[in-house]
Amino acid sequence: MTMQDAHTPSSAASGPTGLGWHKGYLSGSRPDLRVPVRRVHLTDGKDVTLYDTSGPYTDPAIETDVRRGLPPLRQNWIIERDDTEEYAGRELRPEDDGIRHTTPRGGAVPRGRVGGGGESAGLDGLDAVFPGRARRPRRARSGGHREAVSQLAYAKRGLVTPEMEYAAIREKRTPEFVRDEIAAGRAVLPANVNHPETEPMVIGRNFLVKVNANIGNSAVTSSIEEEVEKMTWATRWGADTVMDLSTGRNIHTTREWVLRNSPVPIGTVPLYQALEKVNGKAEELTWDVYRDTVVEQCEQGVDYMTVHAGVLLRYVPLTARRRTGIVSRGGSILAAWCLAHHEESFLYTHFSELCEILRSYDVTFSLGDGLRPGCVADANDAAQMAELETLGELTRIARRHDVQTMVEGPGHVPMHKIKENIDRQQEVCDEAPFYTLGPLTTDVAPGYDHITSGIGAAMIGWWGTAMLCYVTPKEHLGLPDRDDVKTGVITYKIAAHAADVAKGHPGAQDWDDALSDARFEFRWEDQFNLALDPETARSFHDETLPAEGAKVAHFCSMCGPKFCSMKISRDINERFGPGGGEEGPLGQEEIEAGMLAKSREFAEGGNRVYLPLTER
Amino acid sequence: MTMQDAHTPSSAASGPTGLGWHKGYLSGSRPDLRVPVRRVHLTDGKDVTLYDTSGPYTDPAIETDVRRGLPPLRQNWIIERDDTEEYAGRELRPEDDGIRHTTPRGGAVPRGRVGGGGESAGLDGLDAVFPGRARRPRRARSGGHREAVSQLAYAKRGLVTPEMEYAAIREKRTPEFVRDEIAAGRAVLPANVNHPETEPMVIGRNFLVKVNANIGNSAVTSSIEEEVEKMTWATRWGADTVMDLSTGRNIHTTREWVLRNSPVPIGTVPLYQALEKVNGKAEELTWDVYRDTVVEQCEQGVDYMTVHAGVLLRYVPLTARRRTGIVSRGGSILAAWCLAHHEESFLYTHFSELCEILRSYDVTFSLGDGLRPGCVADANDAAQMAELETLGELTRIARRHDVQTMVEGPGHVPMHKIKENIDRQQEVCDEAPFYTLGPLTTDVAPGYDHITSGIGAAMIGWWGTAMLCYVTPKEHLGLPDRDDVKTGVITYKIAAHAADVAKGHPGAQDWDDALSDARFEFRWEDQFNLALDPETARSFHDETLPAEGAKVAHFCSMCGPKFCSMKISRDINERFGPGGGEEGPLGQEEIEAGMLAKSREFAEGGNRVYLPLTER
Repeated sequence: MTMQDAHTPSSAASGPTGLGWHKGYLSGSRPDLRVPVRRVHLTDGKDVTLYDTSGPYTDPAIETDVRRGLPPLRQNWIIERDDTEEYAGRELRPEDDGIRHTTPRGGAVPRGRVGGGGESAGLDGLDAVFPGRARRPRRARSGGHREAVSQLAYAKRGLVTPEMEYAAIREKRTPEFVRDEIAAGRAVLPANVNHPETEPMVIGRNFLVKVNANIGNSAVTSSIEEEVEKMTWATRWGADTVMDLSTGRNIHTTREWVLRNSPVPIGTVPLYQALEKVNGKAEELTWDVYRDTVVEQCEQGVDYMTVHAGVLLRYVPLTARRRTGIVSRGGSILAAWCLAHHEESFLYTHFSELCEILRSYDVTFSLGDGLRPGCVADANDAAQMAELETLGELTRIARRHDVQTMVEGPGHVPMHKIKENIDRQQEVCDEAPFYTLGPLTTDVAPGYDHITSGIGAAMIGWWGTAMLCYVTPKEHLGLPDRDDVKTGVITYKIAAHAADVAKGHPGAQDWDDALSDARFEFRWEDQFNLALDPETARSFHDETLPAEGAKVAHFCSMCGPKFCSMKISRDINERFGPGGGEEGPLGQEEIEAGMLAKSREFAEGGNRVYLPLTER
Repeated sequence: MTMQDAHTPSSAASGPTGLGWHKGYLSGSRPDLRVPVRRVHLTDGKDVTLYDTSGPYTDPAIETDVRRGLPPLRQNWIIERDDTEEYAGRELRPEDDGIRHTTPRGGAVPRGRVGGGGESAGLDGLDAVFPGRARRPRRARSGGHREAVSQLAYAKRGLVTPEMEYAAIREKRTPEFVRDEIAAGRAVLPANVNHPETEPMVIGRNFLVKVNANIGNSAVTSSIEEEVEKMTWATRWGADTVMDLSTGRNIHTTREWVLRNSPVPIGTVPLYQALEKVNGKAEELTWDVYRDTVVEQCEQGVDYMTVHAGVLLRYVPLTARRRTGIVSRGGSILAAWCLAHHEESFLYTHFSELCEILRSYDVTFSLGDGLRPGCVADANDAAQMAELETLGELTRIARRHDVQTMVEGPGHVPMHKIKENIDRQQEVCDEAPFYTLGPLTTDVAPGYDHITSGIGAAMIGWWGTAMLCYVTPKEHLGLPDRDDVKTGVITYKIAAHAADVAKGHPGAQDWDDALSDARFEFRWEDQFNLALDPETARSFHDETLPAEGAKVAHFCSMCGPKFCSMKISRDINERFGPGGGEEGPLGQEEIEAGMLAKSREFAEGGNRVYLPLTER
């Protein structure tokens, strides 16, 4: 891998904020391996390179069109491996989009024509059916037993894939390190062979902490167009993966639009769509309906799937005396199923079969915590810990099948119980990547649960959680809009980065240091451009001191020119710092001699700490 | 102390949100000891009592007028103790308000007439001079050596003051417990004898974690009126104390308005005003100017003062190789002074004299951390730790003088260095209450530093910090407006409460549990009324589901009726929970029998988990 900057004037992109940064590329060992980065140009001539999740949308050299979808950057890598094949695929059905009454149940319609052509049957947004190129699904080549085409299988065989190298360059690690972590099951690289548009990334405790953003219409509100926009918007601000949690109508079609336009891995909860297919009657769910839904989503290109296979019949009564019972949608659906049938769920009993399906597309398991606590009172209780044991058992089964696996976690956990929670998960699940929702550290602040949970997320990230599922200000109250998605992502990027710094992740603190240097040197434009959200930082500054001159002023708007501690501090730095004194630690004598000299200098300079405004 | 609710229909107040809660009072051992609480009325007939910082403004039975000021509720307690006396007080001077050129330097003007009557000399807002009742300052009765009139002195003597009892009722602890903590120096009760308007509260690691909000005009912007409004607004949302950090003009007058209208203790940094009096030239500061300013503020009623007496000459060079040098305004002013004079600051050399002044008004020290780190790279470094040692030494001196003392802390600290920071402070400063700014856990998110610091604040609160100084979204960028103040306070109330829950503070989790119960039972109105910010919770809910009917709906707007996990979970609860089964843990046989029975029931009931909307 070569780490030089691959961008040329023609491929250089200036960011949405205009000047100050552009999209650059790092090149790998082959010409088609170009890893996007955000390159911030500082006014002192240096560059700072930041991880970039925003996809081709922020590169003006690439023309994007949501009706055509993104270029399939991994297509050749997948084909070169020569272990997959295209096939006809499952036929689409009206019920895939939740249409139950306009067409007889089970009546097949031609591929790409669901709800299309004149009878849009309630589909809304972007003219409904995705108009991009025709595409046949791909899966592991046939044989008596389908081969695993998973990154885990390759890693175990010692193969470094282009995907691993790509992720390694993003992480500033070696490709071999990435391979090792995946082979050990400590990391996953979600990359369905049917989602070649995805820019490979790796999730594991020894990599940068990742952030997932949930989108999804519900039965009550939202449209396809909004969901696609939320996805691109979330990745623009740093979402590493996106989960499409749509329920209700247009599930299949919404997902197609999202997948074809997503530069990040897409996760789903297939159970939600399966439930739609049985008209929302949990007890009518069957393995057949569920398996059919999983295949449908594997063929579309979903990269990871939440599977609540750890909800066992005997665990359900453990939730009965809880303060808030079962709060996971998937968990409650399965609990209802178990109650109705008085037997273990089809997810548990057919788990090996499910592994066989997922391994032939390289879909990653996200083992759902259906019994996660819904309030701090229920944290780390018997129900949650019992399910966790089962998730550990399932992790081992999945790994034997070469299916990449991560494990989901809570939820609501007070601070003093967070460490116990992740330590137990890491132990029980053989270090499988932990993927947590928050956790929320208190229940008293609906409307601010991005913050109640951002606190827990930062802590659990520090202690080893690999990916954090964001929570928006609308949690518990409503569906997030565009602003909520941004707030959720930014809050979680803060939590993830604070965790990276606390973990001592190689290079993580460089970003903080670059911004702090800019702050100390009053390079306001550099502060804005280095900020997680340059637009907000700039606009907040401009509210108080709107004049252009203030952006080069050697004081902050909080204190005014006279009180600026940074100004005084720079003065001290000039006297005693590397520029003014010797390099290396100063001895006591040196200090005293230096201080006396500097004290005289200070007096000779007129005892002025603050220059009058007119002399600035 | 009697804990019964003292409110009667005539004293009951309905809150700003209209229905759902009112201001109530808990009565103490004497008729004039009535402790305000926020009493939330739940729809199930129960009440939840919450700590209330909002003062008389939220009690409709009390007529408030910012031009008159608040009633002096502690006045009689102070007089009864018969250890203070009124005196003429220091004469006000134009330079107290930063007026230097309209009046000759040092020319005295009549009390209450600074900038008043026709020649307002640049004073702005609320007609400038506070028009409330005439007032002579009060201090410890004269003698050869002025007596300590501090809560610490009383506590050491075994005296439980009405202030201690008041604070105890708020904290749900015994008055004796409060006295013990104050006597041990583990807690402070800031209550200047010249600020009788304050509602007593206690700050210490064994009490609820407190939140301070900073207000203050700067040389660049803001008016008196805005500052008074920010103070009442901050306490409305839960600020336990307010610091007036004004610089520039109108410092004295702004502070008078703030003090006379503040139900919470007010803190200041006298150095800022002293510097104004020497035209902003740090090296011209003298003990005389500083002492004069301290007396001025003691007479006005400031409850606690930040004093950066730990900045020693020999520590200044330790900051020279830092990434961001000295970022505390007070610290940098003193460092400049030390450099100019090449000797220890007047704060350090006159510290005992300062103690004598503060003890005669019961002003509490907040020993400032002038060398706190300004970026994560500088956290817990030699400069900070050296100053902390000196703060420990000063704490012991102050205590010997019976002056209540807390110690300020950073700043910017990555998560993995937070615990070390507070553990060291508690050790070095003999468990004096720690009062921290954040800390910010990463430097990369200007515009969101309420969040970067809210994370650190929650953690350091859990580990024993007694009070958290809020950070608003405008930190590093500009002055907070009304919305920023609210966001800062709410974020920090979340951090403080999450810390209380994690500490296992008695009764803290009751609030979470009450809200979670309401959530589980779909009591939407109760959820809103119990929320830290009822207005925001309600409005977020209404954005998605505006109809009144939705507020009684048995599902959330996120999932819609079919997917509601709470709904399913309640169903399980009804089958296995206390209402449906036996009390106490269920045995395995009971569970199995119960489940079989319930499974049959479920089938007989039509296998319906979700009732159709029409049957709800």
